[in-house]
Amino acid sequence: MDAFMQAAIAEAEKGLAEGGIPIGSVIVHRGRIIGRGHNRRVQQGSAILHGEMDAFENAGRQPASVYAESVLYTTLSPCAMCSGAILLYGIPKVIIGENQSFLGEELLLRGRGVEVEVLNDPSCVAMMRRFIASHPQVWNEDIGQD
Amino acid sequence: MDAFMQAAIAEAEKGLAEGGIPIGSVIVHRGRIIGRGHNRRVQQGSAILHGEMDAFENAGRQPASVYAESVLYTTLSPCAMCSGAILLYGIPKVIIGENQSFLGEELLLRGRGVEVEVLNDPSCVAMMRRFIASHPQVWNEDIGQD
Repeated sequence: MDAFMQAAIAEAEKGLAEGGIPIGSVIVHRGRIIGRGHNRRVQQGSAILHGEMDAFENAGRQPASVYAESVLYTTLSPCAMCSGAILLYGIPKVIIGENQSFLGEELLLRGRGVEVEVLNDPSCVAMMRRFIASHPQVWNEDIGQD
Repeated sequence: MDAFMQAAIAEAEKGLAEGGIPIGSVIVHRGRIIGRGHNRRVQQGSAILHGEMDAFENAGRQPASVYAESVLYTTLSPCAMCSGAILLYGIPKVIIGENQSFLGEELLLRGRGVEVEVLNDPSCVAMMRRFIASHPQVWNEDIGQD
């Protein structure tokens, strides 16, 4: 598998080890990771630090020219908030580990010209399925459903 | 003016006094403010703490039932990221100070059934116009344009 998706999965696993929701993300500029992140709802009591948002935050303030040449990797299909961040900053390409556990705003992204690639990687699917089965409430809270 | 929009403006003014971008927001549940926030790009070097996002974060982890009865007030039309957060959490109503300095994703919000009210309050417009004129670069960075 692509080393960058492996890095996103490593972030998800780090979150899981912390007792959190196992979703990870990295932002890659010209072949170099400029931001890594994972969901911090449980760990920090955060309502906004989804994996992708955490990666944006850890990448820090970047000029539009950097975002325009970046690719965002995420282990799970991005929700409306994270898709909105992708649109705000003009990220042109998003690579998604899987969209079977949760289908985010892929249509919105594609409709705005973002290239979206879905790997449906079995290890990403298995990680989310296990977490959702064992922690349905925190998962539903994370997607605004509970 | 509505006391909640006044509270959002007070947040924007607090941000301005800190040297930041003057955009503020409050989230109101059943007539009580549960989260206040202002843009923290300059103050914290944050790429994700727009005023609305900061208000969501300060409101903390909330169940869907609370968001479903909440109104978000923001001094400026919400960008794609903040609109995405509004959609993620199912906020049914958004009251916007002004959309003349920046027109966010109001159409997307309305298209998803969110009630959007735009006040076009002259004090909100004047605050943003002054800031944008004196700090064009940080403003453009904040909306992914520079």
